[in-house]
Amino acid sequence: MGTNILAIAGGVGGAKLALGLSRLLGPGELTVVVNTGDDETFHGLHVSPDLDTVMYALAGMTNPETGWGIRGDTFRTLEALGRLGAETWFRLGDIDLATHVRRTELLRAGRSLSEATRELTAHLGIAHAVVPASDDPVRTIALTGEGDLSFQDYFVRRGCEPRITGVRFDGAEAARPSPAFAEALESADAIVFCPSNPVVSIGPVLAVGGVREAIERFGGPRVAVSPIVGGQALRGPAAKMMAELGEEVSCAGVARRYVGVCDALVIDTVDAAEAPSIEALGMRVLVTPTVMRTDDDKDALAREVVGFVETWRAEPERASRRG
Amino acid sequence: MGTNILAIAGGVGGAKLALGLSRLLGPGELTVVVNTGDDETFHGLHVSPDLDTVMYALAGMTNPETGWGIRGDTFRTLEALGRLGAETWFRLGDIDLATHVRRTELLRAGRSLSEATRELTAHLGIAHAVVPASDDPVRTIALTGEGDLSFQDYFVRRGCEPRITGVRFDGAEAARPSPAFAEALESADAIVFCPSNPVVSIGPVLAVGGVREAIERFGGPRVAVSPIVGGQALRGPAAKMMAELGEEVSCAGVARRYVGVCDALVIDTVDAAEAPSIEALGMRVLVTPTVMRTDDDKDALAREVVGFVETWRAEPERASRRG
Repeated sequence: MGTNILAIAGGVGGAKLALGLSRLLGPGELTVVVNTGDDETFHGLHVSPDLDTVMYALAGMTNPETGWGIRGDTFRTLEALGRLGAETWFRLGDIDLATHVRRTELLRAGRSLSEATRELTAHLGIAHAVVPASDDPVRTIALTGEGDLSFQDYFVRRGCEPRITGVRFDGAEAARPSPAFAEALESADAIVFCPSNPVVSIGPVLAVGGVREAIERFGGPRVAVSPIVGGQALRGPAAKMMAELGEEVSCAGVARRYVGVCDALVIDTVDAAEAPSIEALGMRVLVTPTVMRTDDDKDALAREVVGFVETWRAEPERASRRG
Repeated sequence: MGTNILAIAGGVGGAKLALGLSRLLGPGELTVVVNTGDDETFHGLHVSPDLDTVMYALAGMTNPETGWGIRGDTFRTLEALGRLGAETWFRLGDIDLATHVRRTELLRAGRSLSEATRELTAHLGIAHAVVPASDDPVRTIALTGEGDLSFQDYFVRRGCEPRITGVRFDGAEAARPSPAFAEALESADAIVFCPSNPVVSIGPVLAVGGVREAIERFGGPRVAVSPIVGGQALRGPAAKMMAELGEEVSCAGVARRYVGVCDALVIDTVDAAEAPSIEALGMRVLVTPTVMRTDDDKDALAREVVGFVETWRAEPERASRRG
């Protein structure tokens, strides 16, 4: 029915659903907006880990063993950089490195991150729009007992080991949504929050100047897929971070985070018993398998989510969205 | 006898003699000054082809099949850059690329090319000083019937095919010798011009502001090794360029170029008959095998050149250098 979806994604989990959505929807029906709070400069190169994870997923290049990086990539340049005295804890593969070299070249030539990303995705044969949340710098900082750590320092180098007391999104308030994100916030029929870390993947996107307000007043269904399944994060530090921030590590805990910006939460069948406590927050609930191990799983979840949205939009009382 | 040599080198031929000299002389006895007129920005990275060729030679990393690049290097990143729409006619290997990434990072952080080179050579385990002719940008331009071409465009992309009418060294006049080059011009006992292209390898070094004058007034022996053997360049476009510029493609032609900055020319045994015409220019001549195919050849030529210099310095009438 030509539903135009704005999907908001972080890294691996988000990329999985984004791939499913891209296989279901035409290029004109999907805009994937990606977190840039994880962006970091390594070896003088601009690395956008979440954008890369989503791009590589949609290009069919993803390393299936990790969910990020490129299948069959090697690390010869990185190893040589190590011999030259550079730090190598952030693993950049040889093929992956071309992305960062090219992006950095384009940015230094004055192109925006949106323009650089469009150039990269076009050459990777990606038909759908994959866009940064913002062209302005937003940097996620983990506040820990050991001081403030840049996200990759916390996430990769320290393996999320330090206990966090909070997170901060430097630059977010002054940042503006990228042109394609702003356009999708106006024209999309529905917003889908992919099953990404609500704290450090979705959080920085919502923190971009004007985004939360635009989503609050968005006219169509706003559906999040819970990244918490059975009281645990499927991957990454979402559960640990939520617990350290004093939040309930459950679908209801995720729902509480999304009150005001989401109308519905998609939860896994193992969490069906949580439905009443989520509905008590004023949200609809869709209970369906959400664990994406295979491409069939991604397709199935994408179909469920889009079907859910389309049924909703067809309801007679659609105008009163929060019914 | 502790002779302190300042060697001036370009790419492959220069790197061969520089390696021989480094195996003969201690780290305090040799400064290798390298042409930077070939430097170019590729993919936003600062590439210094001649510095790299000399560094890789002294580090024992050189690809023996080419004389430049790194033994066993692969081209995965470059191929990926090609898939992303970048031009790939300048062949940058994966291990090689680490050099350019690291150098660019250091330069962007405000380090000079000398400092960046020192950092790179230290990590490559090179004990001898390998220094750029200048920390200021000098860019060799080939003047051709098809217009002005940057050196790598002329040399690599066009394979030296366009006929040249001249060369220009943009920035050279305003450039100053690097600190280590300036220091060696004061303190070295002898200057050795390696068998590099006199037009576009030695030429840009001599064009750096103040260098020609400093070499003209230099107090010790100044010895060049002819890159022309038997009327041909051992490799590269030296012969073609000299011919197109109306110069004689011979050892005497090389000697004529070096009048005023050299006191002696080392020529190959096949060119022994040229000795009188070189001596007629006021230069001494050393006739010895100069073709360096093996490391033994490099060692032998280095021994010949250093021995020649040391004998000369031991002469009673040494003070009147140009005797």
